[in-house]
Amino acid sequence: MISRERLSRDIEILRTFTATPGSGVTRLSYTKEEALAREYIKNRMQEAGLTVREHPTGNIIGRMAGRDDSLAPVMTGSHYDTVLSGGAYDGVAGVVTAIEAAHSFKEEGFVPERPIEVIAFVEEEGSRFHHGLLGSEGLIGNLTKEAMLSAKDNGGICAYDAMKAAGHDPDAIPSHAIGKGDLHAFVELHIEQGPVLENEGTEIGIVTCINSMNYGHVTVKGRADHAGTTPMDARVDALRGAAVFMERFYALAEALGNTTATVGKMDVYPGSANVVPGEVAFTVDFRSTDMTRVKRMHDFVRESADNPPFPGISMEFHMLSEAPATDLDEEIQSVIETEAGALGFSTKRMPSGAGHDAMNMATVCPTGMIFIPSTFGSHNPKEFASEEAIEKGAKVLANTLKRLAK
Amino acid sequence: MISRERLSRDIEILRTFTATPGSGVTRLSYTKEEALAREYIKNRMQEAGLTVREHPTGNIIGRMAGRDDSLAPVMTGSHYDTVLSGGAYDGVAGVVTAIEAAHSFKEEGFVPERPIEVIAFVEEEGSRFHHGLLGSEGLIGNLTKEAMLSAKDNGGICAYDAMKAAGHDPDAIPSHAIGKGDLHAFVELHIEQGPVLENEGTEIGIVTCINSMNYGHVTVKGRADHAGTTPMDARVDALRGAAVFMERFYALAEALGNTTATVGKMDVYPGSANVVPGEVAFTVDFRSTDMTRVKRMHDFVRESADNPPFPGISMEFHMLSEAPATDLDEEIQSVIETEAGALGFSTKRMPSGAGHDAMNMATVCPTGMIFIPSTFGSHNPKEFASEEAIEKGAKVLANTLKRLAK
Repeated sequence: MISRERLSRDIEILRTFTATPGSGVTRLSYTKEEALAREYIKNRMQEAGLTVREHPTGNIIGRMAGRDDSLAPVMTGSHYDTVLSGGAYDGVAGVVTAIEAAHSFKEEGFVPERPIEVIAFVEEEGSRFHHGLLGSEGLIGNLTKEAMLSAKDNGGICAYDAMKAAGHDPDAIPSHAIGKGDLHAFVELHIEQGPVLENEGTEIGIVTCINSMNYGHVTVKGRADHAGTTPMDARVDALRGAAVFMERFYALAEALGNTTATVGKMDVYPGSANVVPGEVAFTVDFRSTDMTRVKRMHDFVRESADNPPFPGISMEFHMLSEAPATDLDEEIQSVIETEAGALGFSTKRMPSGAGHDAMNMATVCPTGMIFIPSTFGSHNPKEFASEEAIEKGAKVLANTLKRLAK
Repeated sequence: MISRERLSRDIEILRTFTATPGSGVTRLSYTKEEALAREYIKNRMQEAGLTVREHPTGNIIGRMAGRDDSLAPVMTGSHYDTVLSGGAYDGVAGVVTAIEAAHSFKEEGFVPERPIEVIAFVEEEGSRFHHGLLGSEGLIGNLTKEAMLSAKDNGGICAYDAMKAAGHDPDAIPSHAIGKGDLHAFVELHIEQGPVLENEGTEIGIVTCINSMNYGHVTVKGRADHAGTTPMDARVDALRGAAVFMERFYALAEALGNTTATVGKMDVYPGSANVVPGEVAFTVDFRSTDMTRVKRMHDFVRESADNPPFPGISMEFHMLSEAPATDLDEEIQSVIETEAGALGFSTKRMPSGAGHDAMNMATVCPTGMIFIPSTFGSHNPKEFASEEAIEKGAKVLANTLKRLAK
């Protein structure tokens, strides 16, 4: 039996391991707060009957032996780091439901054919070293020493040194790499982070695909001029150029459908009320499950830079990261759908707009994701998933694991 | 004879009285740099044969007696403060040409019927106390003690205290107020600050009107959301709302003609690449010589706030300053035109997009302005008026003063 009490206790206790009490949860990897959470998670895994080990990156893994323990395990879990002043559910919901599923198996005396491994990933958010999905990248052996040396926190400490100082063994990452065939399946439960399930009153989201995520910088250059003495037709207003660009950028995403376009950060120079802006720097973020649409967005920004949308301005465009779309496993989607339906829960197949460790796991094994409704999105102290929503998610996760591990 | 050498010497020496050597001219009122410039200007006035006095605000006045010294004087001049890291010509060009005109009269033995007064205004830019046109406001007696107490510099020192500390007498401002009939005319020479004369190769601008200047703050509120997980149709993107507003704001100014629209300063919150902006704060600046057009711009912004241009956003709009358009004197415009023509200089009647002390002077006497071409606009270290342009302006100013003072 899934225990709502244990789930709520775990959420509430993990919430207290924060560097910013009163301002949400700030739990960066390889810090004092993370060490407290690590200890708690390991204890909970042991309480659930799991055999605990640590991956060289610091990822915590709890294993339930299978009837045939030589079979490739089914793995489940999520991350337990947070953004700066984040909430108590993003990541943690997937860790505590995975442990609780195992705990319920122990209570029920259910022994799976395949081993089941519960994982709590470090450094998914990239909040400390500005290198997201680091823990899962380490698990699949894609994390190079160079990357760990160059990924530095705001104090200049690199991921490699921080990992070592916390007692982990970054040099052992390559020899522990999980490759194709090493896992039978991976399933991650996560809060949705968006409004769709909550708005529709749907209980369980089944992730079909993780969006392609594309992030870049645009600089528009015009000419700074006196706001009073420069006629409109003599201006090269960088902000006006940016506004024209943005309108078209948003409209294209809408026209394509299933695509998002965001300008989240913008700086206007020189930034005086009575000076026509000479330069505007801003970010572009565009995402879609469909790489054709991603290409259209990318082409649009590129063509706008080649052919600026306003006379006289110049536009520079630099892509800083491009992650392709990740399709999740069809069969696992069906299993989740069947199990949720059997429990009487409404479901919706939907893409994930945010990135997840599941993206890395999908490169080595069939991977699925379960979304539960969340209020106030995520990455803020107000993010919220109800006890009921978490309990329902844990039930679907447990039954999915049972089916996958037999 | 107007002396190009003296004009250039004065420009070059006044340029050195700056608080930011190497980064343009920064000469704020009632500072050490201003005191050095004051001393230099007084000496130059005396050298030009003028009798020097100080107005209670610190404005420097040099007087040339008229043949009938009881007649209302013709006054000329401009300001000698600057913006932060400004240039060597904005304001100073009008001060040194006025002194040079008087100097040439002395050399020629020309004695006008009416007295001529040369004025160098303090605190026109408002760079220190954030209260523009303060010196001329004091001259016409519109500067209240309350205003001087509340106009504070970035260190918290108010204009009243700074004036006193510099040895001036702010309490005497009311008793020295110049009213209607006290001056026969006022003429100010200034660099254009815009590109029109330079682009057209015109030598002398004759200002017809000083634009109405209107400045306000707009805050657009939407809802911050995750850039990946929030579909386009579920967003209330404050920046998108701002972009739609700006496009219409610029387009209206263009459609109206002779109107400028500027968004010079913009802040986007929370300002993360992967967060849909929840709030955008920006300035609006709109100017025209025609109050009907100003009203159309004002109505547009007001109506946009009442009826936001994008679903779900809210807009707040606060006007921070509104100055009506100031028509300059028709007769003085004709005198300037005639005198410039007689010297063989090309002229253009044109509005002033920037504000000037002439706005205050126009409330007490017929007022005119002479523009000379400037490169790189104004309010920056690169602003530039050629020696030739300044000399031509000084000649037109001198002959205009001769005609006005007889």
